[in-house]
Amino acid sequence: MKEYFPFWNKLTAVQQALLRNAVTERHAKKGEVLHNGSEDCVGLLLVKEGQLRAYMLSEEGREITLYRLLDRDICLFSASCVLHSIAFDVSVQAERDTVFLHIPSSVYQELMQQSAAVANYTNEVMASRFSDVMWLMDQVLYKRMDARVAAFLLEESALAGTAELKITHEAIARHLGSAREVVTRMLKYLQNEGAVAVSRGGVTITDAEALGQIAGDSLR
Amino acid sequence: MKEYFPFWNKLTAVQQALLRNAVTERHAKKGEVLHNGSEDCVGLLLVKEGQLRAYMLSEEGREITLYRLLDRDICLFSASCVLHSIAFDVSVQAERDTVFLHIPSSVYQELMQQSAAVANYTNEVMASRFSDVMWLMDQVLYKRMDARVAAFLLEESALAGTAELKITHEAIARHLGSAREVVTRMLKYLQNEGAVAVSRGGVTITDAEALGQIAGDSLR
Repeated sequence: MKEYFPFWNKLTAVQQALLRNAVTERHAKKGEVLHNGSEDCVGLLLVKEGQLRAYMLSEEGREITLYRLLDRDICLFSASCVLHSIAFDVSVQAERDTVFLHIPSSVYQELMQQSAAVANYTNEVMASRFSDVMWLMDQVLYKRMDARVAAFLLEESALAGTAELKITHEAIARHLGSAREVVTRMLKYLQNEGAVAVSRGGVTITDAEALGQIAGDSLR
Repeated sequence: MKEYFPFWNKLTAVQQALLRNAVTERHAKKGEVLHNGSEDCVGLLLVKEGQLRAYMLSEEGREITLYRLLDRDICLFSASCVLHSIAFDVSVQAERDTVFLHIPSSVYQELMQQSAAVANYTNEVMASRFSDVMWLMDQVLYKRMDARVAAFLLEESALAGTAELKITHEAIARHLGSAREVVTRMLKYLQNEGAVAVSRGGVTITDAEALGQIAGDSLR
């Protein structure tokens, strides 16, 4: 528990027992939606092994990926009922088979009310996600789409540990909050630049350096 | 103090004295920049009377208004050194002559470490600002520029308490993270629709209902 909860040593024995008894280990299959916006308050999810994706869904069903949760990352917004002032919906989906710890909302809320250490940990987690979203805002506002697609492909490649990405144009568009046609046009451009090779099954990065330059450049 | 700090009654007498002795009342002239991104950690600002604007500045000097702080609102990000995980810069400017309370970062941090009530109050403030930014993200991603200009004019009019807004096209563009030419084109369109009258000195709302409809409609 100490390994996963940085505040563990600052809890009383009673609080430690409360948390230990409430936490359960769970599994999610790749593709499974673990939390669906305002529809539920499933509790906090702490990734042991795997990869989760937090995304925003517009009224019209368009998506944009906000951030990824990897090993040891904790998902706060799946327990948004814990914080009254949260007026937005985030959905969470497993991008790989994932093992995670589940902490019920009510137990976490109780600990947060009692313990400044837990409340401050929550603050830091939220500030960290807030930073992710502000970075994304900067990208959406000021970066050209070619740079965003290039940056996305590099990030995906780093996460998957391979230069051969199995991903559709449609899926890239969903991650970036864009349209398939736009992504197809951008991939064609990146292919002409020799940075990627587009095939039926996906996209292969052929020149990571060139792709990195396109990702770094180019203001809208 | 009780009036301004919802956690006041949950502080010990020592903590109350610490806060009371540290808080000072200050004044800012309209236009004054109170906090400039990463350059400082000026402390928390609690608005007594007036109006502050929090905005993001891109590397290239482009702005977008994130949210407004009105009476009783507190500005957290002017004390971003209090939260280690904040990796973004927000600037704060007075939009009117403003009277505010200043709380030094070090004192607030001390209270936050000691008191779960203060830490949880901080959580709620951050969640509230996070919600503002997520709303803005949704606007930027999915709303057409005409709708965003219309919504901005209505908000300005409500804040200023008048339909005759003294504001330049340049200033509107800065608020919305857009370019002056784009805003000029949108205002021309809104004028053609009979919703506003554009003059040398600013913009007058002539049909708030029509403007509201344009603000509510129209996906990108």
